[in-house]
Amino acid sequence: MKYLITGVSGFVARHFIDYASSADPEASFLGLDLKPPRYRYDHAFSEVKLLDIAALEREVGAFKPDYIVHLASFSSVARSWERPRESFANNTSIFLNLVEAIRDRGLPTRVLSVGSSEEYGVVDPDHLPLREDHRLNPISPYAVARVAQEQLSRIYARSYGLDIVITRSFNHVGVGQEPVFAIPSLVKQFVEWKMPGTLELQVGDTAIVRDFLDVRDVARAYYLLLKEGESGEVYNVCGGAGHSIADVIRMIGGIAGKDYREVVDPTRVRPNDNRAIIGSFDKIKARTAWQPEIGLEESLLAIYRSLEEGAHP
Amino acid sequence: MKYLITGVSGFVARHFIDYASSADPEASFLGLDLKPPRYRYDHAFSEVKLLDIAALEREVGAFKPDYIVHLASFSSVARSWERPRESFANNTSIFLNLVEAIRDRGLPTRVLSVGSSEEYGVVDPDHLPLREDHRLNPISPYAVARVAQEQLSRIYARSYGLDIVITRSFNHVGVGQEPVFAIPSLVKQFVEWKMPGTLELQVGDTAIVRDFLDVRDVARAYYLLLKEGESGEVYNVCGGAGHSIADVIRMIGGIAGKDYREVVDPTRVRPNDNRAIIGSFDKIKARTAWQPEIGLEESLLAIYRSLEEGAHP
Repeated sequence: MKYLITGVSGFVARHFIDYASSADPEASFLGLDLKPPRYRYDHAFSEVKLLDIAALEREVGAFKPDYIVHLASFSSVARSWERPRESFANNTSIFLNLVEAIRDRGLPTRVLSVGSSEEYGVVDPDHLPLREDHRLNPISPYAVARVAQEQLSRIYARSYGLDIVITRSFNHVGVGQEPVFAIPSLVKQFVEWKMPGTLELQVGDTAIVRDFLDVRDVARAYYLLLKEGESGEVYNVCGGAGHSIADVIRMIGGIAGKDYREVVDPTRVRPNDNRAIIGSFDKIKARTAWQPEIGLEESLLAIYRSLEEGAHP
Repeated sequence: MKYLITGVSGFVARHFIDYASSADPEASFLGLDLKPPRYRYDHAFSEVKLLDIAALEREVGAFKPDYIVHLASFSSVARSWERPRESFANNTSIFLNLVEAIRDRGLPTRVLSVGSSEEYGVVDPDHLPLREDHRLNPISPYAVARVAQEQLSRIYARSYGLDIVITRSFNHVGVGQEPVFAIPSLVKQFVEWKMPGTLELQVGDTAIVRDFLDVRDVARAYYLLLKEGESGEVYNVCGGAGHSIADVIRMIGGIAGKDYREVVDPTRVRPNDNRAIIGSFDKIKARTAWQPEIGLEESLLAIYRSLEEGAHP
């Protein structure tokens, strides 16, 4: 089977390829991205801007993928506030370019349209864990772009007959994630603290609760959805449990075995409408038997070791 | 007060300017469109593509409007199926360009963000008349673009502090509407039938029920929403009553006084998920005291006379 992977240089792609190449020994991959992967990558790669319709159509037409895993995105909520137009172009528009390339050619390609838990927006704590039929109420330009992508996915599946499986993916954690995200940033501070005495850990709002899922579980979910998901349907990809950042810090502190105290860095405290976000994975489990297998502590340990070894550039 | 009107060459703009210039004798207008209006228009005009960010920003920056009435759109659902990318660019992207131009300059401009009843998508007949808190379920690329525009409008109002009033506008009827739409097409057939004998009226699905509102009532609603609407809020602009196309045909037949029989033209029968769409105007009425004043028969008579006189080019 041939897999076209957009956003191949990102950390989810790395783990998806790991999983898919062991689950499907016949798999071949073509990765697209603005820059080549910095992780070890032994497959075909093309440097393509997905906004460049002609280049994208050329790649899709030549490779004729069985599957497209659409991981490319402008995924920073914070940057979407600064550059809403760019967020829209690099989420909704690139998705449209991709599905139009398939529709134009009448390819039977199955597409995984990756969305975000951000689509839910502000939620009532009584509605947790969030199920897929919960109302969407996007509150950032990024989230609006993701909702549009999801609605277009359904329309392309239902009305144009394309084969598209849709996700709403919750917070990922794992090896290779950029330290602009909270968890790798916290782990990195512990790893880099080589002095005697107490680490002054820079933190944001440690009371917020999120549903963190190991990226290897994410990769497996995406693979199973490609094989067994229902076209036009949306699936939460989540761990089903909430952890506060304070919990996460305690776990990392335990792994590191270093003294620390938390110091609030106001630049890390973002205005936030949701104290807690937790999803339900009942729907994907009912369809594919997927469920999360890797606990948060195990994820944190993997990240810690990887940063300690400097394995990740 | 200074009014910037996008899509000024369309028929809603024509009626809005009529209404606003009599309600507000100090009003000055700058109209933007791809082509100059073909109706009589005595105000400033600039030929601008709203996708041209620099040109749009120049116009907004120079005119410094008190109000923007954003009527420009790629409003054909049918064409959005053929060209989904174009529909997105000419709805969501041009709206983003407009609000970014205001945000960049910190202008206190109030914007009327015009949306569509298409945003509701497939609705359960038990939920009629539709209220603004009804779930949105867009089922065409056009409708997705309109939902994105609405969600962005809320975010720009709530989080960037822009002053934006939002509508979901239902079917319009009135003088100057292009005969690609059902009602002017039906009236035109009656007007142009000069032969003795029976008109073979080409019809589509005559059982569908829509909430038709006279464009003069629409214009007054838009004006009142600019003056009194609440920023960040969405208002249905609708008549609150349903008429079947069969009813409409009977009314036109009565006005024309000509014999006719209906002949179904399969190209006019569009697959349609909604037999009936009717909105509630309680919310706009509660805020602005607006309610529809012109009945459908009166609208049809005005269209009939206008086409008979050839007043509309």
